[in-house]
Amino acid sequence: MLVVKIGGGGGINYDNVCEDLVRIGKNQKLVVVHGGHAKRDQLARQLGLEIPVVTSQSGVTSVYTTPELLEVFLMAYAGLINKKLVAKLQKLGLNAIGLCGVDGRLFEGRRKNAIYVRDGSKIKLLKDDLSGKVESINLKLLELLLQHNMVPVVCPPAISFEGDIINVDGDSIACLLAKELKAERLVFLIEAPGFLRHHQDETSVIERIPRSEIESFINFAVGRMKRKILSIQDALLSGVKEVFIADGRSEEPITKALQGAGTLFF
Amino acid sequence: MLVVKIGGGGGINYDNVCEDLVRIGKNQKLVVVHGGHAKRDQLARQLGLEIPVVTSQSGVTSVYTTPELLEVFLMAYAGLINKKLVAKLQKLGLNAIGLCGVDGRLFEGRRKNAIYVRDGSKIKLLKDDLSGKVESINLKLLELLLQHNMVPVVCPPAISFEGDIINVDGDSIACLLAKELKAERLVFLIEAPGFLRHHQDETSVIERIPRSEIESFINFAVGRMKRKILSIQDALLSGVKEVFIADGRSEEPITKALQGAGTLFF
Repeated sequence: MLVVKIGGGGGINYDNVCEDLVRIGKNQKLVVVHGGHAKRDQLARQLGLEIPVVTSQSGVTSVYTTPELLEVFLMAYAGLINKKLVAKLQKLGLNAIGLCGVDGRLFEGRRKNAIYVRDGSKIKLLKDDLSGKVESINLKLLELLLQHNMVPVVCPPAISFEGDIINVDGDSIACLLAKELKAERLVFLIEAPGFLRHHQDETSVIERIPRSEIESFINFAVGRMKRKILSIQDALLSGVKEVFIADGRSEEPITKALQGAGTLFF
Repeated sequence: MLVVKIGGGGGINYDNVCEDLVRIGKNQKLVVVHGGHAKRDQLARQLGLEIPVVTSQSGVTSVYTTPELLEVFLMAYAGLINKKLVAKLQKLGLNAIGLCGVDGRLFEGRRKNAIYVRDGSKIKLLKDDLSGKVESINLKLLELLLQHNMVPVVCPPAISFEGDIINVDGDSIACLLAKELKAERLVFLIEAPGFLRHHQDETSVIERIPRSEIESFINFAVGRMKRKILSIQDALLSGVKEVFIADGRSEEPITKALQGAGTLFF
């Protein structure tokens, strides 16, 4: 069992990724998770909506999700990217099926009714954020699809225990999926050749990071990479054997990642 | 087995429809199909896109689907409306799961590579339309979900035999689903109290139409209603016992339809 998370950056080469998924899917069970932040941001701009980004007390940035932005989220992730990916895989012969976390309560979690955020040197309380954190996965549904030779292609948003749609982090979903599905390996495809020591220097890929040493590398992480590394740490502690960060812009990105390109966490 | 098609008009009361679906879903198997033309048109306008409508030689109007419009279609139908409906049903306790025709090749069909359309008094050939007609349904997938107590909430677009996403008519899907699932009854919820003798007079509902007499009523149909009536005729000829057209703006719209409100085709 392999879990692949396709990042949501605009530079991801979906053709390359899908061709590689089809090759790999012939020999093993696959679950694909995808993001969509570039498309979401583009659509929000086209619709004249602001995307408020907030920074938590621990320094992690995230989007403050208004009702209008949640609609953009649904359209970009569950509508556009999910279905185009599924169609591309179907065209190449892989029996993909697209779901978001709302479907069959695939990803269930808790809504953050209020979050404390940094505003310069002050700490502010923000309410009504339609974001949350996934706590459980409908494993029965995923296993049903996998048993019937389908490849689930899944994405945020999720559903709260109360039944509200909530914006959640896709990387955390990928890690939780790998853990719950007892996947041995998890691959993150991003817009860089791996986890970089200097985030603007693509030649500074950190090649191997043992799980016990993640703490000492965390300060190289900038922006959304920080949360990714924390999720990866969590996945490794929960039984996933190897996690890869590799280049979603390259040819055969997953095959190459598994062969040693990019960063390996083990 | 009951198939319910929720129209895509802006006046549909989704709260009423979902509450009614939950009540009905307690006692029988359900498949829900939905449209989304009002939201699609609104989104296209917001994005500055034109929606070219063409009229076929037989007088049926349809949207000429450009690649940009197909993206809007995916966002409005498979993203926004589908997931909001699924969440609403989940919140009320119904185990809904949302799919479009691309997922697991749920609705497969033929792409119309070229269509002849009326342009005033002339007939023109239009190419590159990303529209088509559904010819087969992945019944195995639907039955798998139904057997596991899920309620499929499905919508266009579909996938062509070659693996391209194609815009298809939702009413035809509803009729084909009812036929293939051997549903006894099919309910269409629209923005009117039924099929009207005079399309702007809401008091002119035609109450009962025997299948043998549909031909004599077809001329009362205006715009998209014409294609709906043709699909209904087809469904009745294929074994569906009763088809209802009823008011999606009212309370308990499905329950009332089955009790005699609106138009019954039998």
